[in-house]
Parts: sequence; structure tokens; C-alpha cells
Amino acid sequence: MPKNRLEAFSDGIFAFAATLLILNLAVEGHPLSRQLLGIWPSYVAYALSFVTIGIIWTNHHLVMHQVAHIDRFFQMASVIFLMFIAFIPFPTRLLALNLESEGAQAAALAYGITLTATAVMFNVLWRYAASGRRLLHHDADQKVVDGISRTYLLGPAIYLAATLVALVSPVASAALYVAIGVFYVLESSIFGRRA
Amino acid sequence: MPKNRLEAFSDGIFAFAATLLILNLAVEGHPLSRQLLGIWPSYVAYALSFVTIGIIWTNHHLVMHQVAHIDRFFQMASVIFLMFIAFIPFPTRLLALNLESEGAQAAALAYGITLTATAVMFNVLWRYAASGRRLLHHDADQKVVDGISRTYLLGPAIYLAATLVALVSPVASAALYVAIGVFYVLESSIFGRRA
Amino acid sequence: MPKNRLEAFSDGIFAFAATLLILNLAVEGHPLSRQLLGIWPSYVAYALSFVTIGIIWTNHHLVMHQVAHIDRFFQMASVIFLMFIAFIPFPTRLLALNLESEGAQAAALAYGITLTATAVMFNVLWRYAASGRRLLHHDADQKVVDGISRTYLLGPAIYLAATLVALVSPVASAALYVAIGVFYVLESSIFGRRA
Amino acid sequence: MPKNRLEAFSDGIFAFAATLLILNLAVEGHPLSRQLLGIWPSYVAYALSFVTIGIIWTNHHLVMHQVAHIDRFFQMASVIFLMFIAFIPFPTRLLALNLESEGAQAAALAYGITLTATAVMFNVLWRYAASGRRLLHHDADQKVVDGISRTYLLGPAIYLAATLVALVSPVASAALYVAIGVFYVLESSIFGRRA
Repeated sequence: MPKNRLEAFSDGIFAFAATLLILNLAVEGHPLSRQLLGIWPSYVAYALSFVTIGIIWTNHHLVMHQVAHIDRFFQMASVIFLMFIAFIPFPTRLLALNLESEGAQAAALAYGITLTATAVMFNVLWRYAASGRRLLHHDADQKVVDGISRTYLLGPAIYLAATLVALVSPVASAALYVAIGVFYVLESSIFGRRA
Repeated sequence: MPKNRLEAFSDGIFAFAATLLILNLAVEGHPLSRQLLGIWPSYVAYALSFVTIGIIWTNHHLVMHQVAHIDRFFQMASVIFLMFIAFIPFPTRLLALNLESEGAQAAALAYGITLTATAVMFNVLWRYAASGRRLLHHDADQKVVDGISRTYLLGPAIYLAATLVALVSPVASAALYVAIGVFYVLESSIFGRRA
Repeated sequence: MPKNRLEAFSDGIFAFAATLLILNLAVEGHPLSRQLLGIWPSYVAYALSFVTIGIIWTNHHLVMHQVAHIDRFFQMASVIFLMFIAFIPFPTRLLALNLESEGAQAAALAYGITLTATAVMFNVLWRYAASGRRLLHHDADQKVVDGISRTYLLGPAIYLAATLVALVSPVASAALYVAIGVFYVLESSIFGRRA
Repeated sequence: MPKNRLEAFSDGIFAFAATLLILNLAVEGHPLSRQLLGIWPSYVAYALSFVTIGIIWTNHHLVMHQVAHIDRFFQMASVIFLMFIAFIPFPTRLLALNLESEGAQAAALAYGITLTATAVMFNVLWRYAASGRRLLHHDADQKVVDGISRTYLLGPAIYLAATLVALVSPVASAALYVAIGVFYVLESSIFGRRA
């Protein structure tokens, strides 16, 4: 399979999963203005998941940029990775609707477990491609490769930690998910600029 | 990241957000013919948002045509810009369902704020790319670049004005959103033709 | 705008509108086996609209194959054409749910008007491109161009006729929509084969 | 039609159909944690259909890799094949919601019939392209072609068998659908790796 068809399929699922998030927003009852203000957790959850999917998409591109060819294992692992990406709208809705109710803990755990599993699968993808430079371009810089390996390893650890926080405080856990996204965006804004 | 993957991701989100608008249409009750005529604001809102997304997509292409390479800042700003694009179906539904009820003002404000924020993010994208010709093609014509900068600056101003009108008259505000779209389509039809 | 970005956007909307059709299918009540058999109009409507969108997509490709470059008029006309394509899931649901009720006539009319309008916009697109060979490839065969013009002119007429039949018999009208699709598929199957 | 536009359209439908599966997941009632555990059949059905669509997508690529050019018959057969792919979310929801109720048999049959029909259409596509090497690349290896023909013939037989099992035991039938997917993923993981 040429790399570009996997990229097209992946880009489709990233874009579609992100766009489907909007279906989680709904209002009922009167007056509309108060209802619209009352669903603020839905806006935060929408922005959080949209930006998180965007960040993973950015990093996925980085992986594909280093990869020269793909095999059937990488293909199937990609399908399973994308299965977790496409799952994100569901725990996002749970988080949006339950942040202020008794279901907050279950929702925050569901959200965290999904993102942790996504991060783990992302590492599986990358490590399979990078181990022994199995699928990499001949001219891929080993320092860059090792840098990616180190950075990506943080993902599952950070999300697992934020997930575990939900056992104590679901709101603190949700705040951590937001903080991770904001940090990444700020870091990109400050360090990811051309002069 | 090569430019073309950002374009594929963006095109995907533009296309999905526009297509998802159809889920806002629904009828209940009898007789069906009367119900279908009664939801005319839904048709107007559907056409308005579909064409508006189409116009932004057209202009987004114009930006990408001038851009030669992208950096991480541009990528993250694109994700946030696309987050507003994918948000449009929600205020569209609000506008369609509340144009004739007490919620008209809140709906018209929500719609206007979304489009204003989208236009602002679009300017952020363009200005970042164009400032000091940071991301532009070497042979991009500076006159064209300055022309785009001037034209795009109007977007947030026009949408902000139409939004503020909702404080006085939501229906007038909605009529302005429609007028902006119609004007753009007519202008393209008249001046955007080959001989 | 390069042709290929318009094709990507169009292909996205064609594919997405076709896939969204599945959301029209739903069952309630017991026993499930009887419910599944009882919604047979939904299956027919799903297949009808999916294949119809597929046929239009095929023909849209034929247009784009003759077109060498696009201008702003063609772009905006494409957006409006795609707006009708993305609208198709709504009248499809109406037809599926009302074929056996008092709303059958309104549903068959809504379906026919949508397809007629789509066929008209398709002719607008093609005639604008082909008139005086405005946007065509230099080496486009004039005989092929004239053949397409003649064939495409039939579309609005056929769909308008089937729509008007709904004034007398909605079921006959629906049967005609199906017959048009079946005819096209059979014709492709018999005459569209390589030896 | 150039091959790549059919691939783009197909990739779009594969990606959307897979992503739409998430809309099948929903919870109601309290406590949330128990509800989330109670819908385990929905998670299994989601993973089953997502991976199954991923596997078919992988094989579809294999077909397209051997194909050099396409004709109108292949195009229309592809549309009908994709119509079954896009249908998968519906029986997936049936299976998820009825696995433990009286509707289990109807749901398992609906799921199996859909996958069997998809596998049959996939064979039609391939056999039309491969028969007499009608649409194949000049340098396509006949041994590879014959190997694909033999392997793909198993698909309808295996799914038909699993469907018929539903007449005796719907749960055994569902377990077989899962087993087929797991087998394929494991087989890819073990034999589809580069050294």
C-alpha cells in the first residue's frame, strides 16, 4: 500500500471525528440565552477534544513524514489507532454532560482511558516503525528519531496520570486534560514560529 | 508538514461541516406539506451556512495558494480556525429553530459571534503568513498580498456589525448575514467570470 | 484555484452525503424481525439515493475531466450545486418515512424538486464551462462536448416529469425515481464494459 | 475516470462509515458508571465493525493496486459495493442494542447478511477486473492475481456460514464475526511484518 492512501484514510478519520464533535452540543428549554450559557462545559469539551485531535493529527503527520513504506502490521495497527481517535466524541459527550453531576468521575475516567489508550497505540505505531529503523526513510536523522521516541513516550504517562487524578477529583482531572492541550498550543505558538 | 496534508485535512473539515448542516432539518406532525413549508427558516439557514462555508473555503484556498511552507504555529492556528468552521452547524440550528421565537436574539448573537470569531482567526492565519512574507512563495506578488490583507480585514468588521444589529433586531441581523452571502455570490458571478 | 482542490472538496461532499443516508434508518418496537421487514421503504430509499448520488458523482467527474481551469463563477456555482447534493438525505428520509402515509405526495414532491434542482445546477455548471469552450481543455473533442451537453439536458426534464407524476400518484413517482436509477445502472453494466 | 478519484471517493466512504459508528453509542440513566459497563456489547460491536471496515479497506487497496484503469461498469459496481460499506453502521447498532434481547437473532442475521453481501460485491469487483486481466496492470503478476482470487472467494463463504449460525445461536454467530476479525488482525500482526 502506498503511504499516501493511508494518509488520506487517516486524514479523513481525523477530520471527521473532529467535525462530529459538534453533534454533542444541544440545548433545550427556555430562555435560550440562559441555556446557551449553561452548557459551557460542552464548549470547553468541544474545544478540548477538537484541539487534542488536531495535536494528534499534527504528530501523526510527523510520524508519517519519517516513514518511507508501510507493511500490513503497520496498516492494521493504524486501523486500531484510528479506532481510538474515532471513539473520542463519545467520552467527550460524557464529560460535557456530566461534569457537574454524580457521573463526573465515570466521565472523566472514560475520557482519560480513551486518550491514554490512543497515546499507547500511537507509541506502538511509532516504535514499530522506528525500531531498527524498520520502516523509516534511509536519510531519516537518527537524532530526530530518538527525539520523537522520547517525546511520544511522555504521552501515555501524562494522560494516565491525569486519568488517575479523576479517582480523587474529576474536575481536577478535566482541568488537567485542558491544561495539557493549552500547554501544547502555547508551546507551538512560542517555539513553533519561523523568525 | 507538507502543505498538501494541511489542505486535505482542511478540505475534509470544510466539506463535513457543510454536509452535517443537513442534520439540522427535521419535521414532525401533520400534514407533512404544511410542516415542510413551516420550516422555511431551516432552509434559509441551511443555504446561508452552506454558502458561507463555501465562501470561506474559497478564500482559504487563496491563502494556501500564496503560502509556500507552513510551520507549527500556522498548523495550530489552522486547527483553531477549523474548530470555528466545524462549530457553525450548531448556531445554524439555533438560528433555524428560534428565528420566530423569544430565542431569536440569543440565536442571532450566537451565529454572529461564531462567524466573527471565524473571520478573526482567518485574519490571524493570513497575517501570520503574510507578515514580513514569513510563509509566502518567493514569487508571490506583493500587490496581491496587500490586496488580500485589506479585503480580509473587512470580514471581522462586517460580521461584528451584523452581530451587534442583533441587539436591536435579530431578524435584521439574520437578514444581514444572508445579504453578506448573497452579495459575495453575486459579486463572484458578475466579476469572477472568464470572458 | 487548482482543479484538484475543487475535486477533493466535491468528492468529500459526495461521499459524505451518501454515507449520511444511513442515519435515516431506524427501528423501534417489537419484534425486531417484523420491524426490520416493515421499514423496506427505508432500504429502497437508501439504495435509491446512494446510487443516484453515485451516478451524479460519476457524471461530475466527466465534467471535471473536460475542464482545464476554473474561475470564481465556476467555484461558486459548484458550491451551490454541492449544496443540493448535501440536501438529498433530507427528502430521502421524508420519502422513506411517508411512502405509505398521507404525507406521500409532499415527500415525493420534495424528493423530485431536490433532484430536479440538482440536475438544473449541474447543467448550469457544465454549460458555463462548455459555452464557447470557456473552461475546457484545448484538446477536448467537440463531439464529446456536444454529446455531454445533449445528454445532461435530459436530466432536469426527466426528473421534472417524475416530480409532476407525484401530483397524481406519489407511489408511481417514487417508482419512476427508482426506474431512472436502475436504468442508468443497467445501461452502464451493459454498455460501460471493456471487451 | 482516473483511478485516483475513485480511490479518493472510496477512501472517503470507508473513513466516514467507520467514524459514524461512534454515533451508535449512547447511555441513559444512573449511575453513569454502571451504564457505561452495561453497554459493553456496544463497545464490542464498535470495535468489530471498525476493524472489519479497516480490513475491507486494506483489501480494497490491494485490488486498486493491481488495477490499471477503470471503466463505467467497474465504477457503478464500486458505487454499489460502497453502498454496502456505508450500510454497516445500521446492523452494527442493531447488534449492539439487541445482543441480549429477543431481537438477537434478527440483529445477527441482519449483520451477517450485510457482510455477506459486501463480500459478494467485493468479489464481483475483483473478478470483473481480473477476468481475462481486463483492467489489470500489464505487469501484474498472474500468481498474485490468482492468489487474490482464491483468498477473496473465502469471504462470502465464511460470512454466509457465520450468518447461518445465527439461526441456531445469535450469540455464537456474533462470536464468529468477532473471531473472523481477530483472526485477520492476528494473522496480519504475525505474518505481515517486515523483518
